[in-house]
Amino acid sequence: MSDLLIQNCQVLQIANDGSCVEILQNQDISIRGNKIEAVQPTGIADSSHFKNSIKANGMLAMPGLINTHAHVPMVLFRGLVEDLGLEQWLNNIWLRETKLTQEDIYWGMLLGLIEMIEAGVTSVADHYFFMDKAAQAVEITGTRALLGWAMFGNQGNEEIEKTAAFVREWQGTANGRIRTIMAPHAPYTCDDDFLRTTARTAQKLGVGIHIHVSETNSQTNTSLKSRGITPIQVLQQTGVLEVPTILAHACGVLPSDIEILSKYTTGIAHAPKTYLKLGMDTAPVTDFRNAGIPVGLATDGAASNNTLDIWESLRLMTLLQKSRHSNPQVLPATEANKIATQESARVFGMGEQLGKISPRYLADLILIDTNAVHHQPNHNIPANLIYSMQPNDVKTVIVDGKIIMQNRSILTIDKIEVISHVRSCVERLSKTNSGEMSEKL
Amino acid sequence: MSDLLIQNCQVLQIANDGSCVEILQNQDISIRGNKIEAVQPTGIADSSHFKNSIKANGMLAMPGLINTHAHVPMVLFRGLVEDLGLEQWLNNIWLRETKLTQEDIYWGMLLGLIEMIEAGVTSVADHYFFMDKAAQAVEITGTRALLGWAMFGNQGNEEIEKTAAFVREWQGTANGRIRTIMAPHAPYTCDDDFLRTTARTAQKLGVGIHIHVSETNSQTNTSLKSRGITPIQVLQQTGVLEVPTILAHACGVLPSDIEILSKYTTGIAHAPKTYLKLGMDTAPVTDFRNAGIPVGLATDGAASNNTLDIWESLRLMTLLQKSRHSNPQVLPATEANKIATQESARVFGMGEQLGKISPRYLADLILIDTNAVHHQPNHNIPANLIYSMQPNDVKTVIVDGKIIMQNRSILTIDKIEVISHVRSCVERLSKTNSGEMSEKL
Repeated sequence: MSDLLIQNCQVLQIANDGSCVEILQNQDISIRGNKIEAVQPTGIADSSHFKNSIKANGMLAMPGLINTHAHVPMVLFRGLVEDLGLEQWLNNIWLRETKLTQEDIYWGMLLGLIEMIEAGVTSVADHYFFMDKAAQAVEITGTRALLGWAMFGNQGNEEIEKTAAFVREWQGTANGRIRTIMAPHAPYTCDDDFLRTTARTAQKLGVGIHIHVSETNSQTNTSLKSRGITPIQVLQQTGVLEVPTILAHACGVLPSDIEILSKYTTGIAHAPKTYLKLGMDTAPVTDFRNAGIPVGLATDGAASNNTLDIWESLRLMTLLQKSRHSNPQVLPATEANKIATQESARVFGMGEQLGKISPRYLADLILIDTNAVHHQPNHNIPANLIYSMQPNDVKTVIVDGKIIMQNRSILTIDKIEVISHVRSCVERLSKTNSGEMSEKL
Repeated sequence: MSDLLIQNCQVLQIANDGSCVEILQNQDISIRGNKIEAVQPTGIADSSHFKNSIKANGMLAMPGLINTHAHVPMVLFRGLVEDLGLEQWLNNIWLRETKLTQEDIYWGMLLGLIEMIEAGVTSVADHYFFMDKAAQAVEITGTRALLGWAMFGNQGNEEIEKTAAFVREWQGTANGRIRTIMAPHAPYTCDDDFLRTTARTAQKLGVGIHIHVSETNSQTNTSLKSRGITPIQVLQQTGVLEVPTILAHACGVLPSDIEILSKYTTGIAHAPKTYLKLGMDTAPVTDFRNAGIPVGLATDGAASNNTLDIWESLRLMTLLQKSRHSNPQVLPATEANKIATQESARVFGMGEQLGKISPRYLADLILIDTNAVHHQPNHNIPANLIYSMQPNDVKTVIVDGKIIMQNRSILTIDKIEVISHVRSCVERLSKTNSGEMSEKL
């Protein structure tokens, strides 16, 4: 007996080569356990043979969105540090981060996961601290995550061992919803020996590496000046690229870097709102893709990005690439939809299991109400998903075969309790380490 | 007896010089007729002395948003013409526009007005055709509008007379909610004589002019090459700038143009999403403002912008200016909030009556639920309004003292009927003039 039948929905299907998007009408999706069993015209499957069914009434089913790079618990700092130069901003944030407790991470993670569920984001590659607490939050909310415990070179090899223990403990838990990854911060905060040991450890553990790299042109130039090679070359020489990697940002790469990356199993996590807000350059998305390197959507942390909304990343990526090339034909809707689904799944390391509504894929999917006024008159759903969509249009969210939000109600966790708890910490969070309140408006 | 008491809200207040934003807590707003009578701490006003009251339960009251340049009925084309170069795009759109009937304009205007009400946009400066039909839609929905009947130079002086008749007929109607303006398309589609006659006519009628100008650098260069002056100089020499003007876009202005404009009563309508999507340069927002020229937020038509969401314009304007200057300190939250309220009101020509929640201002205001997860933990409401806000957070909309949306229900018009009607036209609208269906994905 199958577990869940979604009745009478539209289904977004994208050709593997990204050449076309099709919207199938009047489909039923049957889910057995945590996998999609079949997608077929409404009426063939008998709902009495399913434990549970959802009448979709023509809503659009598409794969759950994937956030390929975030620092989810930073939602605790949303709006706290605004309108500052990059260096001041970083110092201010780091000062605040030193004060965060394990409990803060747990509640911040819950808050951020709820925000993502409400926006149809079912998976996140998260890069932060106290990740055992983050893992507990993922376990409870029912989403999917790839968790890396962030570490800096000055913490020494002990820290590599500690995060390796986290990797071993949590890998494949929660029915496989939780995967783990090694997470050194960046080449400019981790020396070569530290990166080399991390790479060897990742290889032994059979996991990948999630790292910030070449965030700005200036980082690349500094690296070239001080040691004659780019940050991407540092990753190559230290063996980091020998395991599957998620490279966050990579806005400052050179064409030669792209050539290097094309030879490895790597993906770019792209967070365009952060780049705009912090006055950085955006990344060469089309160059990466022309070289066969997949690009995944990301939000970075809410301290810079302010939300964990992947629809916004999709929209900004597409608009900015058209603008960057002064050419509205760049990144057409089909390609952008592919990045949001299949390609983000590849960067997330699950390209064979996520990003498509097809038999044998994991049942991570969302139902979208396309009847809202801002979608009308619905000439072009793929374009609407990029340019008109609001997170609130996502009505129902299914992860690993289980309904975790239905008609905008989150079923796995008490949202009001999470909000109340977080708000009770506002005063403490708004103080910097020196005890001063942050400058209020 | 006063008419409406809004109880226990937060109120957004911005200093006139834009130097600070304050969020007043626990306030009551009393409204008499169509004006704000008082803003005072909760408990002073007696609700039994008001015909109607709203318990705001801590929601945030702020001025209704103003869309300073749109072609609202173009929502009918949303998503229909995507990923084309600017020239192809324009030709495709113009071909479709020739087929629109008066009835289409009426229903398209209704659809767009509903979309704006749902996003808290209470006023729009609209520039399109069959504006008597648009005016009827504004009258019914209860919003505020500044309507200009678009005309091209090749239509001759007859057309100027025709639109002047529209101006006379509708000016100040619907209790003053409808104002009118002359709307020549652009200097590159209207010759000097046509512009001169339009300017004289506007002056006689006591109204302003709403016109596209210097949309791209290339328009400015073409004008300089063919006649030795910029499009802004054309407006100056033909007398257009002698009346109050709304200048749409002005992305391609020279520093000398900004100097000229600073001497006149003019405002810039800024629609950043369109500029990105069509691969154009964005406008020098900070230069305009440094010269004392107000900037107002705008969406342009949904054929290029895809929504009529002014929150999105606010966010993109702010992000793009930070990016343009490679400086995150540019356009801080206080300034951006000022542009969204007081400054947009000035561009709209009602700076003394709209854009503030203060006694004697018109009662156009919206109530926003700041309890949503994506606002938590609410450290900084002015920043959240720019970077985290979703249109769906707007719960209640009041225009001219009347509630037109309450708890997301539109009270003035049957939304379902409008959607149904528009959807019944989809097939006809999706065909181009030659009878061919548009290329489908």
